[in-house]
Amino acid sequence: MQINGKTFRTIWFENNIVKIIDQTKLPHKFIIKDLKTVQDSVNAIKTMEVRGAPLIGATAAYGLVLSIIEKNDLSFLKKASEDLIKSRPTAINLKWAVDRMMKKLSGMNSNEILKIAINEAKAICEEDIVFCKNIGLNGLKIIEEISKKKKDTVNILTHCNAGWLATIDWGTATSPIYHAHKKGIKVHVWVDETRPRNQGANLTSYELNEEGISNTIIADNTGGILMQRGEVDMCITGTDRTLSTGDVANKIGTYLKALAAHDNKVPFYVALPSSTIDWNLKNFKDIPIEERNSDELSHVEGLDKNNKLTKVLIYPKKSKSMNLAFDITPAKYVTGLITEKGICNASKEGLESLFK
Amino acid sequence: MQINGKTFRTIWFENNIVKIIDQTKLPHKFIIKDLKTVQDSVNAIKTMEVRGAPLIGATAAYGLVLSIIEKNDLSFLKKASEDLIKSRPTAINLKWAVDRMMKKLSGMNSNEILKIAINEAKAICEEDIVFCKNIGLNGLKIIEEISKKKKDTVNILTHCNAGWLATIDWGTATSPIYHAHKKGIKVHVWVDETRPRNQGANLTSYELNEEGISNTIIADNTGGILMQRGEVDMCITGTDRTLSTGDVANKIGTYLKALAAHDNKVPFYVALPSSTIDWNLKNFKDIPIEERNSDELSHVEGLDKNNKLTKVLIYPKKSKSMNLAFDITPAKYVTGLITEKGICNASKEGLESLFK
Repeated sequence: MQINGKTFRTIWFENNIVKIIDQTKLPHKFIIKDLKTVQDSVNAIKTMEVRGAPLIGATAAYGLVLSIIEKNDLSFLKKASEDLIKSRPTAINLKWAVDRMMKKLSGMNSNEILKIAINEAKAICEEDIVFCKNIGLNGLKIIEEISKKKKDTVNILTHCNAGWLATIDWGTATSPIYHAHKKGIKVHVWVDETRPRNQGANLTSYELNEEGISNTIIADNTGGILMQRGEVDMCITGTDRTLSTGDVANKIGTYLKALAAHDNKVPFYVALPSSTIDWNLKNFKDIPIEERNSDELSHVEGLDKNNKLTKVLIYPKKSKSMNLAFDITPAKYVTGLITEKGICNASKEGLESLFK
Repeated sequence: MQINGKTFRTIWFENNIVKIIDQTKLPHKFIIKDLKTVQDSVNAIKTMEVRGAPLIGATAAYGLVLSIIEKNDLSFLKKASEDLIKSRPTAINLKWAVDRMMKKLSGMNSNEILKIAINEAKAICEEDIVFCKNIGLNGLKIIEEISKKKKDTVNILTHCNAGWLATIDWGTATSPIYHAHKKGIKVHVWVDETRPRNQGANLTSYELNEEGISNTIIADNTGGILMQRGEVDMCITGTDRTLSTGDVANKIGTYLKALAAHDNKVPFYVALPSSTIDWNLKNFKDIPIEERNSDELSHVEGLDKNNKLTKVLIYPKKSKSMNLAFDITPAKYVTGLITEKGICNASKEGLESLFK
């Protein structure tokens, strides 16, 4: 997609180096960063220079490529795969991508392993792009239907960033929006700021701006009254892990919007590539919920009056804070799952009808 | 209550000057500000140097005192009363306090009017303190009951600041907490940050710290998963306007917490002095919802690394944002109203059983 009128992907491989956009500096600075070692990849995931379930999967796949370039050795590769899986706990794509790579590489000899690893990492990326495009085409139908009934701009609320910056291209939650926009349907997006890291404001609003899509940032507290007033036609979010039951683990606060949507009869969709489905866990209480450093809450970075990137402490010095990164939206509050294969109910039957 | 070990109220009258704590500078700076004219009072309310339904009522009452000191003239007083009522639209106490003052002052001659105005403004403050104390004693019973059953720390979630800084002393939502603490009951408070102005972090956590009450700031997005995990025993919030139906207008985001509480069977209480009841409006859709400047969202103030108060832009420069200040929590999601006269159902019958 576009940044400053130029087309980018979120990750690419060039001269044995992995290139990423440093998303911790957006929207204020656009910096392309080199990852040269597997540790660079682990750090990029941990510090959220790359984030979003599909993109961290791709970064982990390329992390294994880098580990082979560093040291073509099976035990080093195995250690790399473990470090990558541990780098963030909640999104399932990380494990999915690493497992897929390791399966492909198992039994390969050291002459051919690098080439195969590069091809598989590329395949993961290309596949994600196709999946995201198809998610867009499937979700487009929902937006088209609302647009036909309403005969006015379709207002869509989203939480966090499940945009192209969270994937390789197109995004998950945003892909139907981009496809609707390209088809000439009038859309407006309510963008939840998404504290504490403000990925809604920093990334979703940013990428929608760059694609020329009308959007308004709101505090995470605001979605409820907008729905009470009839100013939201539908919600679409992403997911970091979808259980086979249809329960969804996504950025903290998603659950609250799903409750408000349910209370106001606003359809609430979750968009996902099948790589985000966890077919093993049965109980959402078993999903590990990441707790991140509380500094992410108490400190905020932005541009001061001299246009200089500055970090400020916003809390009382004596105060403690706690930073949980995800919550669970029970399947009963999800109107439907938008996948690369079609839209289904958020249930075992729904998911199995498309994927088994 | 205490700040740095010294006892304060939020507003007081001294040598014909009204003194307030400038709450826009908390928690980083503690500044006592002088209000010398009615326009000073209007500005203090508009810019939220004073905020909280009971405190803006008291500030408006003292604003009329200042207008009489400025110019002992009936048409000036009338204009002052209109300006004060218009200074913020959602909280009903503002109108309540101004109407009460004007009724008291009507027909008074210019010799006695100032003295009567001062006494009435003082009476409004003293009455609020008694009301808040009684809210505390009534709410204390609920906390005591949970504490007896649980035999462990009682975890209470609150949104925004309905603390003593929102009133004259004690607070509304915090008063039961302060009373429980003084009685030796172990309490811990989950403090919603409360974007965009962060009054939860800046004011509630600050005042709880100063009183030695254990508290943890969380992003507004976090309450849902804490309730899913059983880590919240009850919620208490304040209200800016309570309809006779039991519907509650309070700081934006309150509704989302009430939905989560309902979904997880966590009791959700709203604490209020009767001055916050609007006996006239029947439909919550008729409550004017204040929309404030979007700069309050896009800019955040805090201490930089040199301990200097600095404001930073946190949004993409091209982005628009929208800043609604209140939402509505329908009565069906409110477990009970804690008032100065006792606890009642959030309903016409409930309120009338105490107040009519």
